[in-house]
Amino acid sequence: MTGKNYYDVTQWNVGDPCEDIGEVINSIIFDIKKRQTATDINEGGKPGAVIYIPPGDYHLRSQIVIDISYLKIKGSGHGFVSSSIRFNTPASEWKNLHELWPGGSRILVDLSPAADDDEHAGAAFYVKRRGEPRISSVEFADFCIDGLHFVDDGSGKNDPENTYVNGKTGIYIESPHDSFRITGMGLIYLEHGITTYYSDALTVHDNFIAECGNCLELRGAGQASKITDNLMGAGYKGYSIYAQNFGGLLIAANNIFPRGASSLHFSGVVRSTVTSNRFHSFYPGMLVFENNCTENLVSANHFLRDREPWPPMQTYDNGLDDLYGLLHINGSHNSIVANHISETIDQQYIQPSGSKPVIVRLVSGQGNYLASNHIVATTETADTQTAAVDASCFTAQVEALLTTDRLTALDVSAVVIEKASRHNTILDSASDTEVVMDRTVNAFRATPAAGV
Amino acid sequence: MTGKNYYDVTQWNVGDPCEDIGEVINSIIFDIKKRQTATDINEGGKPGAVIYIPPGDYHLRSQIVIDISYLKIKGSGHGFVSSSIRFNTPASEWKNLHELWPGGSRILVDLSPAADDDEHAGAAFYVKRRGEPRISSVEFADFCIDGLHFVDDGSGKNDPENTYVNGKTGIYIESPHDSFRITGMGLIYLEHGITTYYSDALTVHDNFIAECGNCLELRGAGQASKITDNLMGAGYKGYSIYAQNFGGLLIAANNIFPRGASSLHFSGVVRSTVTSNRFHSFYPGMLVFENNCTENLVSANHFLRDREPWPPMQTYDNGLDDLYGLLHINGSHNSIVANHISETIDQQYIQPSGSKPVIVRLVSGQGNYLASNHIVATTETADTQTAAVDASCFTAQVEALLTTDRLTALDVSAVVIEKASRHNTILDSASDTEVVMDRTVNAFRATPAAGV
Amino acid sequence: MTGKNYYDVTQWNVGDPCEDIGEVINSIIFDIKKRQTATDINEGGKPGAVIYIPPGDYHLRSQIVIDISYLKIKGSGHGFVSSSIRFNTPASEWKNLHELWPGGSRILVDLSPAADDDEHAGAAFYVKRRGEPRISSVEFADFCIDGLHFVDDGSGKNDPENTYVNGKTGIYIESPHDSFRITGMGLIYLEHGITTYYSDALTVHDNFIAECGNCLELRGAGQASKITDNLMGAGYKGYSIYAQNFGGLLIAANNIFPRGASSLHFSGVVRSTVTSNRFHSFYPGMLVFENNCTENLVSANHFLRDREPWPPMQTYDNGLDDLYGLLHINGSHNSIVANHISETIDQQYIQPSGSKPVIVRLVSGQGNYLASNHIVATTETADTQTAAVDASCFTAQVEALLTTDRLTALDVSAVVIEKASRHNTILDSASDTEVVMDRTVNAFRATPAAGV
Repeated sequence: MTGKNYYDVTQWNVGDPCEDIGEVINSIIFDIKKRQTATDINEGGKPGAVIYIPPGDYHLRSQIVIDISYLKIKGSGHGFVSSSIRFNTPASEWKNLHELWPGGSRILVDLSPAADDDEHAGAAFYVKRRGEPRISSVEFADFCIDGLHFVDDGSGKNDPENTYVNGKTGIYIESPHDSFRITGMGLIYLEHGITTYYSDALTVHDNFIAECGNCLELRGAGQASKITDNLMGAGYKGYSIYAQNFGGLLIAANNIFPRGASSLHFSGVVRSTVTSNRFHSFYPGMLVFENNCTENLVSANHFLRDREPWPPMQTYDNGLDDLYGLLHINGSHNSIVANHISETIDQQYIQPSGSKPVIVRLVSGQGNYLASNHIVATTETADTQTAAVDASCFTAQVEALLTTDRLTALDVSAVVIEKASRHNTILDSASDTEVVMDRTVNAFRATPAAGV
Repeated sequence: MTGKNYYDVTQWNVGDPCEDIGEVINSIIFDIKKRQTATDINEGGKPGAVIYIPPGDYHLRSQIVIDISYLKIKGSGHGFVSSSIRFNTPASEWKNLHELWPGGSRILVDLSPAADDDEHAGAAFYVKRRGEPRISSVEFADFCIDGLHFVDDGSGKNDPENTYVNGKTGIYIESPHDSFRITGMGLIYLEHGITTYYSDALTVHDNFIAECGNCLELRGAGQASKITDNLMGAGYKGYSIYAQNFGGLLIAANNIFPRGASSLHFSGVVRSTVTSNRFHSFYPGMLVFENNCTENLVSANHFLRDREPWPPMQTYDNGLDDLYGLLHINGSHNSIVANHISETIDQQYIQPSGSKPVIVRLVSGQGNYLASNHIVATTETADTQTAAVDASCFTAQVEALLTTDRLTALDVSAVVIEKASRHNTILDSASDTEVVMDRTVNAFRATPAAGV
Repeated sequence: MTGKNYYDVTQWNVGDPCEDIGEVINSIIFDIKKRQTATDINEGGKPGAVIYIPPGDYHLRSQIVIDISYLKIKGSGHGFVSSSIRFNTPASEWKNLHELWPGGSRILVDLSPAADDDEHAGAAFYVKRRGEPRISSVEFADFCIDGLHFVDDGSGKNDPENTYVNGKTGIYIESPHDSFRITGMGLIYLEHGITTYYSDALTVHDNFIAECGNCLELRGAGQASKITDNLMGAGYKGYSIYAQNFGGLLIAANNIFPRGASSLHFSGVVRSTVTSNRFHSFYPGMLVFENNCTENLVSANHFLRDREPWPPMQTYDNGLDDLYGLLHINGSHNSIVANHISETIDQQYIQPSGSKPVIVRLVSGQGNYLASNHIVATTETADTQTAAVDASCFTAQVEALLTTDRLTALDVSAVVIEKASRHNTILDSASDTEVVMDRTVNAFRATPAAGV
């Protein structure tokens, strides 16, 4: 059996991986299934295989369908570069660029799903298997999936590369699955980076998922998974992290940068934990809990919302106004403790004009517990804003982040509790004048003031 | 020297790795030691080697003994599948299963230790070296160690595959050691996953250690190590994480699922930190500090205890009653801050019958500090329980997690301080009526109530 | 193109990697650039490459210059051993040691920078490229960079191997860069482990960086990066982690051990986050914020300061006295919440003699928020100190950590606020008698006491 379970896409005897790596990998999977047929020979029989993708540019014209457990697909380079910066650079300057495209072990997704195709039609990797046991221990590691281009979205803006729409998905897992691992990957310019249904014990760790419409979506339902130590940032229309009907999800030590319509969006998620993350957003609604999210912990996170500093993207946003809440909570018995929340925005950009932005908004539910959160709201001067106009994306972003000297306090509603949310406890997170709530049904202790 | 320090078990000229990978790897280690003899040639001499295990089923009949530094053993697949679900599926249905056994780069531990053998006799990997320096930088990465079966435990239940007993250990490190790494591994159906003595600067990161009697045990003493980003869950008799006489241990961003007699058990551990973890247990005693644990931090963790929802395992538990405490603390000057703790259990399952379950119990010591913990205790309805009877393990568990709609408040003792524990400080973690303590020797500030 | 982008240093046709791996890798980079010249062939063209370094001792006599994106350099072993312990062991005992030198895929840095050379002259890896786009996705993984020796520092102590000075750097990144990854590395006996300028989306994850003068320095400016899950410890003269003018830096789940003049030093850093780390130091000034650090979060960390227990290093320190503050804060609107801070030191070692050590010192700025920090200050007995005199480094350190039984309370200033720092809020972090501040301009709520 020596070496039979190790495959190199550049060494396989079917297809040309540069022309269609899909054909090559599907052929390899067929070979594995042809060789590994017995389920119980001497207490083994179907150990799976590893498929290695060396650095290179590999077009994918055939969707890869995975229906065996224990398959590892591994490259040697996540290959991220900012395609957004390139596409917002005049084409006349492209000849001066050192390189144009992402690299590493790079799959170029050349699929062209039609608008009425099934959702999975535009997926580079499509994981599907019915029956028992659930497909297990498929691993994706250390390669790049590049959707190449976004397309016109019919908005009339004629700005196709900034639409975050192209119908493509990097990894689409349709069937209930167990113990999958996605690590060290680079995903870019896909409408959906990773989409899973019915995850159990999933690991999404130490990836780079950026400039995708949506980065990571855990749909259907699931349990006991972890999303840790990733760099992520979705487009202005999508989710950086989305989870649905999940229990026991651990989201820790991620650095989630803009844009993202939301940084984190939970629907019906319970008993999950969001800790030690850094979230940065350009819009309200950074963290959204909808459909009765219950008993979740949000602790030791840093939230920052400021205004988009990069001119090419300043005309886009997520459509929410500043009364929506940076943190928008529907649900019960959640804990929001020991977070730092910064909002810094010039008065002229606040919507509705003249309103007081809402930081934490409890919309419905009961029994939520907020304690020891430090909310810092500041307003920028016009000088600060204009400084960035001619800057590169990197310079504009870093300068915007570092410009704290000329900030002054901004009047906000630190915590707003709607009537449909009751019996909440708010401690040491806001002053008396910064909260809007019915104190006969919610407990409140103001952050102490000096000289008292 | 080209390539001499890279070995592939399927290419080695001694033994057959499928029949006995132990013989093969021991022969390779012998070869390394035969070639690398001088300790100081041009400031080098003993760089060690890497041994690669491609995906495959490899029986281990000879214990592997490691006594050289800088040895890396690496596979291409952690290969986990739930053996527990398979063994609790009628054998008549096995013919319909896609695969029966774990996979990836999989070592099948065929050792048969006798009851009176030394503890290390059943270890697949046995690390032992006397003298100086301590054996250093041995690395285990990305393969699977499968103990295959549990055996009858003499309990008379005649349920051998659910005993979590077989005398087998995945990795057993007996000698003081430095800077070891264990990453990306899959460990399953071993009585002890990983056992170490006298660890220094150990990394146990991003592994999958489940369905083992005990997952990870750090014994003897040790310092400055990290257990991070693992998925783990032990059997009902054992520890998911155990540490003894350790200083400076960092346990962060792990998702520790049931069962585990305890999720985390410290004995004489000091100045260590437990943060950003998700712990889920089916029994009291999720977190146990014994033997004067001191100056540890437990912060930003999510604890959930509910009842076993999966019928095959509902007859087992860890033998503790609900007065023991979900968190059971012996020791001084520990900090328990900003955690969420959920307990949800139907009244009929509370033991002793009619008692009030204890959430945090300070048993002995002094000067512990609890602040800003949110404790949520609820009780399930009988309807909820019965819903799970015919479900698969995955469905039963997810449904149990997600079922929060019909929960009502459960009366508990949120914090109980025994007389032998003094001078503790309890802030914003419970109401006046939920605590049992002597307020003349302990400081208490109740979580504020509404309308005050 | 099959396999052309995969290189093995032991298989390359130019140079001898054992004599000068620098010549070999530079030659490989030249080959990549010669082959990959077009920037836009079929939407690809410059995917980069991977260079593999098998385990072995590789001298580096020529500096490696990296000026291409998507280059991954990868070994099979971080190879750390304590060189500090070896160099503090009498040479007469070396013959009894199993091995003398670090190992794994090990680069021996034989550069000899002169005192007046540019800073980058002593770097094993020098990354430099002007123009656009910024150099992207270079990756360093799983190998060892060993500076071999420190040199006399002119202090007159004639103790060269303990100076932490040799002018050598492991990885020096001079140009603005994007999406680099440094993972699984071992860095040892370098004056500077990793130095970067203008980082964006940098990952420094799961490395072992110890016994270096400085471990990691992020200079110039930067954004949106992560330093996670590392084991680190610098020398008594340097930084374990340093960052300058950074926004959106995530520092999480690191275990930072002594010595380090500081464990973490920020200069002009804003909107960054330090969570779930374990910090251990032998000196004051563990965490330093200088130059107006703003809106940073420090939460769920464990800080321990005790005295150096290992005799060979007891004559060294960082020159700061105990009034400097374990945490020394210049800046505004920072959050320090839910941390555990332990200081344990014998009265005789406090400087100035008879003074009260300061734990948290707010020096300048405004609007900082401290809440729910648990500060434990204890003093050791003389017996405890003498116990370690003849012990090995490991035993001395572990015993010092574990010795908590005979400790008694030490009188400290838990929080000191200088006049230049105003409008701060201090909650539940100290008693009335442990703070020094002007309560007319700062808000203070003492940690409640028993019996009240």
